[in-house]
Amino acid sequence: MNKNSSNIMALAPNTSNKRETVCIFGTGDFGRALGHKMIQSGYPVVYGSRSTQISNLIPKDAEVLSHAEAAQKAAIIIIAIQRQHYNFLIPLAEILHGKVLVDISNNLKLNQYPESNAEYLAQLLPGSRVVKAFNTVSAWALQSGTLDASRQVFVCGDDVEAKQMVMNIVRALGLTPLDKGSLLAAQEIENYPLQLFPMWKFPIFLSLGLTAFFFFYCLALDVIYTYIYEKKNFSFFIAITIPNRVCPVMALILLALVYLPGIFAAIIQLYRGTKYRRFPDWLDKWMLCRKQLGLIALAFASLHVVFTLVTPMRAFVNWRTSKGIISQALNNKTEPLNNTNAWISDSYLALGILGFFLFVLLGITSLPSVSNNVNWREFRFVQSKLGYLALILCTAHTLVYGGKWFLSPSAYKWYLPNIYMLSLVVPCAVLVVKFVLIFPCVDKPLTQIRQGWERNPKHSE
Amino acid sequence: MNKNSSNIMALAPNTSNKRETVCIFGTGDFGRALGHKMIQSGYPVVYGSRSTQISNLIPKDAEVLSHAEAAQKAAIIIIAIQRQHYNFLIPLAEILHGKVLVDISNNLKLNQYPESNAEYLAQLLPGSRVVKAFNTVSAWALQSGTLDASRQVFVCGDDVEAKQMVMNIVRALGLTPLDKGSLLAAQEIENYPLQLFPMWKFPIFLSLGLTAFFFFYCLALDVIYTYIYEKKNFSFFIAITIPNRVCPVMALILLALVYLPGIFAAIIQLYRGTKYRRFPDWLDKWMLCRKQLGLIALAFASLHVVFTLVTPMRAFVNWRTSKGIISQALNNKTEPLNNTNAWISDSYLALGILGFFLFVLLGITSLPSVSNNVNWREFRFVQSKLGYLALILCTAHTLVYGGKWFLSPSAYKWYLPNIYMLSLVVPCAVLVVKFVLIFPCVDKPLTQIRQGWERNPKHSE
Amino acid sequence: MNKNSSNIMALAPNTSNKRETVCIFGTGDFGRALGHKMIQSGYPVVYGSRSTQISNLIPKDAEVLSHAEAAQKAAIIIIAIQRQHYNFLIPLAEILHGKVLVDISNNLKLNQYPESNAEYLAQLLPGSRVVKAFNTVSAWALQSGTLDASRQVFVCGDDVEAKQMVMNIVRALGLTPLDKGSLLAAQEIENYPLQLFPMWKFPIFLSLGLTAFFFFYCLALDVIYTYIYEKKNFSFFIAITIPNRVCPVMALILLALVYLPGIFAAIIQLYRGTKYRRFPDWLDKWMLCRKQLGLIALAFASLHVVFTLVTPMRAFVNWRTSKGIISQALNNKTEPLNNTNAWISDSYLALGILGFFLFVLLGITSLPSVSNNVNWREFRFVQSKLGYLALILCTAHTLVYGGKWFLSPSAYKWYLPNIYMLSLVVPCAVLVVKFVLIFPCVDKPLTQIRQGWERNPKHSE
Repeated sequence: MNKNSSNIMALAPNTSNKRETVCIFGTGDFGRALGHKMIQSGYPVVYGSRSTQISNLIPKDAEVLSHAEAAQKAAIIIIAIQRQHYNFLIPLAEILHGKVLVDISNNLKLNQYPESNAEYLAQLLPGSRVVKAFNTVSAWALQSGTLDASRQVFVCGDDVEAKQMVMNIVRALGLTPLDKGSLLAAQEIENYPLQLFPMWKFPIFLSLGLTAFFFFYCLALDVIYTYIYEKKNFSFFIAITIPNRVCPVMALILLALVYLPGIFAAIIQLYRGTKYRRFPDWLDKWMLCRKQLGLIALAFASLHVVFTLVTPMRAFVNWRTSKGIISQALNNKTEPLNNTNAWISDSYLALGILGFFLFVLLGITSLPSVSNNVNWREFRFVQSKLGYLALILCTAHTLVYGGKWFLSPSAYKWYLPNIYMLSLVVPCAVLVVKFVLIFPCVDKPLTQIRQGWERNPKHSE
Repeated sequence: MNKNSSNIMALAPNTSNKRETVCIFGTGDFGRALGHKMIQSGYPVVYGSRSTQISNLIPKDAEVLSHAEAAQKAAIIIIAIQRQHYNFLIPLAEILHGKVLVDISNNLKLNQYPESNAEYLAQLLPGSRVVKAFNTVSAWALQSGTLDASRQVFVCGDDVEAKQMVMNIVRALGLTPLDKGSLLAAQEIENYPLQLFPMWKFPIFLSLGLTAFFFFYCLALDVIYTYIYEKKNFSFFIAITIPNRVCPVMALILLALVYLPGIFAAIIQLYRGTKYRRFPDWLDKWMLCRKQLGLIALAFASLHVVFTLVTPMRAFVNWRTSKGIISQALNNKTEPLNNTNAWISDSYLALGILGFFLFVLLGITSLPSVSNNVNWREFRFVQSKLGYLALILCTAHTLVYGGKWFLSPSAYKWYLPNIYMLSLVVPCAVLVVKFVLIFPCVDKPLTQIRQGWERNPKHSE
Repeated sequence: MNKNSSNIMALAPNTSNKRETVCIFGTGDFGRALGHKMIQSGYPVVYGSRSTQISNLIPKDAEVLSHAEAAQKAAIIIIAIQRQHYNFLIPLAEILHGKVLVDISNNLKLNQYPESNAEYLAQLLPGSRVVKAFNTVSAWALQSGTLDASRQVFVCGDDVEAKQMVMNIVRALGLTPLDKGSLLAAQEIENYPLQLFPMWKFPIFLSLGLTAFFFFYCLALDVIYTYIYEKKNFSFFIAITIPNRVCPVMALILLALVYLPGIFAAIIQLYRGTKYRRFPDWLDKWMLCRKQLGLIALAFASLHVVFTLVTPMRAFVNWRTSKGIISQALNNKTEPLNNTNAWISDSYLALGILGFFLFVLLGITSLPSVSNNVNWREFRFVQSKLGYLALILCTAHTLVYGGKWFLSPSAYKWYLPNIYMLSLVVPCAVLVVKFVLIFPCVDKPLTQIRQGWERNPKHSE
């Protein structure tokens, strides 16, 4: 909605002469794209270039001058040049004195240089007011006008007034400036566009690995074993039956892995008797990706739900049901309702539904806009209390569903346990230890430690 | 949560005398509503009015004076008057000199006047500091205290200090100020509350048109044809069967239409050999509403999923299933499991589930709060890579589901193809052309063009 | 994503000497946690403490001095002391003159003191520049680095420059500062972390009460009655059958309760002939929790959908279906398709699906990030027009589903109506009154009243 209005503005530029001239150093792709957009938004643009010959590439309404001349025409100069060439600005130091220099550069690798490009620029030209901005916007998006992705432009700089001037331009282009503070933040801002879901990498690779393992485990037991020993071709199990075995197992294990690091942390703190020592690195990292683990678990759980709900639409299931009914009809008898079976079937379904419901609730509260509206106490209530309740319900769902198999020898093909049994190990362990941890005799010292008490103060020296 | 606390504040006004007097010009509905709310929040309010007789309508605790007297009592004056009457402020120019004037007016139509009301006010009274604010808030919401909708108040103005003063009042009323920059943004802010989903209009009308066409097409082939030639009354197909044919068709076509403009853009760029010329207008507009098209496609896909899942609950389906089983039982035979059918049924279900899963993922990442936390690279990865994967899966789902019908003459009632076949035209075309475009010999020049290279630089002059 | 980069920054502190020394008064838990985090982020930290003996608890790299000495070393002093001890700062007034004092204190109860802690501090030390911040962050989260919850730090203060300095520190710690205006907002900020879903309390207790009532009502009629009079043990109905009766009833009633206060408000306004008098308190409160009521209704509706979709997976349902088919097969006859039944079954399913679809749409638009991107006109369109449409569809779904039971005596066990009938009372009443309210002869005066017109202006004196 907002988007639209800013587009209207861009298409019908305000022709009043209020916009101040902006100078752009560099006629590369991004410099040209930014210039185009600025002209559309009503800014007079002047390019500073080594040669004024390549002018046919740049926007028609822009002037092209030498760097020195161009710089004198504007209060704001956008440095659309690569970091390696910043040196050539040094002779211009006098002309650039007091001007607002906008560093829009990006690096090719994370933390490529010891200091950020913007800080480097500020060191080279101490008399100028350097502002970091625009590096998170893509030239292609600016050019095509299809700013579908984030319209946020991170801005930082030491001079408040200079920052304001740049933020006004950002707004005029239909983007949303976000003040990230002083130039110290430039490193972070420069690293930002290079990331590809950094927090998701470990959880995704872990899930893919586990999924592959469980998939082939099931394939061996359900398809190959059946084919070898029972001469039945159930290869179509690959499409739904096996995925629907792997998904719930993954969901349960990953959900338990969300709560496992908290258990470890509690044990470490109890053992050390203080909270003022850092956790081991692996635990720190694990704790930082709990949200991602939980969301992947939710994805598996959702797939499990849909895979289960399509059951009655499967040709195999319909065939099996018909066969059962026909054999009863041919034998002229009707089986009576087995009350125990009815109880088991209904209660594992109900437990699963409630567990999934809480799971989705946890997922919704982890949406940024929801968690921003929730205070620390509320967040802990939802993520800890409701999260454990979801884990308990999902574990119970699994136990009720297949409890009978534990003692049935036919469940142990090739002497291997069903993956269903493997899936219960982690969640049961987490729940048992958590149960111990909420005993008053354990909970009380732990609470004290978390409030700052130390069993053995000398340890922290 | 936040909401509540601000309400508490409003209900239990801070009685300390720190709040500065606010003057309101005009005793119309919005002026009164705003005055009420300000008094509740602890601001002394004085009204400026032509006659002090109509005082019984305005809040009890407010003073009513002549315009000149009222203006002298406050540093901030809220102009709750229609634009046509702004002229009467000119004689007050001297008194209003240096005061902060808050323009809260709205127009009746988009871009009704050449300049925004706030800019017009600033031109009339050059000595005053004009700030645009509050126009997006409804009087009814202020009055009833039920600010369910957006609590955002867009503020713009050329004077930073004046803007700060207004933003402090906004915050004190329990609303969230959003700085939109200089007074140039006033036009956009004044247009904002007049819009009714402007970006959604075209996608929604397109969907409604296509839906109606496909609905009647199905009605003719499935209900009327069957009634005429087979004497069967399947009128109840209108409720579920036909919607569940139209929904997946619409979802697939709209999803393909999301990716079609990108294909056109690539072809145009390849043909022109440059990215520095504007796309035709229709393509620009199409690209801007891709997100909306995608979300409508997701809505249709979700309906398709639910319509499909209720299948086993339908009386007609149960009757058909029973009939099949009973006829087998009466014939004393059991059909063996058809392995091909089992494969087809399971794999189209699995493809559909995975496609829908990716589709929902795309929908979640298009939530503003999620896409704001994602950088350009991540957004492109999700929307382009995962989007194409979803399109491939959904097209495959459709092909596997009904591939057998292509060669069956009974599928061509009245020599017309099934809508299912029509639905495959656009997605298959998109996928084939995209497949060609990722060939290195095509992809390489395209990438170069998108990085700013031009085949024929003279073209852009 | 953003999260990560800031963590990287925290783990690899910028060793340049640009960060200014920060002084912390108080070596309690939060003071130490904040100090740790600041040192990690590259700030030199000096503690002010009564005795410099307990230094082994505080971070290694921090200095510990007397209060006066510590204060002189820094421009920013964080007051990590409880309000009761603020008095001891008075002797330091001269040293603290002009310094930025950051009040991070929280209270134990809402509105515990007449004025906020920060305002109290500002009164004690009128020469200092007091800023409220950090009170919404938990020590445990700071310590462990797992800032999963909101990273927002509310900041307020009367001195803009001081606020900027504090906000820069907040950003450097990887948190997001949110300017809440002047120190008047401190009360609100101090109340914030004490809340536990205040707006949700009434809707949740109401739902729990009603749910319990309907659950036992159903238990009596469906399980106990059947057991006594028909000698059948249907105790397993507790797991799915009864929840799936209670959920839709709750969803429908709560959805109707969302629209009921609007009806009351309209009637009160029509009766009074003015909108300028406050509604009764209960109505005000009711209107403020409509969003919460609606979301709980959506939760019940979602549960109803999933409970319904698992129907074909229930052992009881499969047994009942088999029994029906087998009895037909044994009697050697096939029942013909009942067209009326097919119509009823398909249309109540279709109505339910469409109603639920609109319901989910309403839920999505109430997400903060979505409703912030929607203007008042659009929000009213969705919440009012689409909301009523959802209510109509859901009521129709219920009526079509069970209309036949109204006249069947077997539905009145123990002369009590089915809960299904009870659920229709409120929604039907809402829809009927709403239907009357949109008659022009009623709608016109109501619209006038809402635009500020008064039937009897003297009333408001």
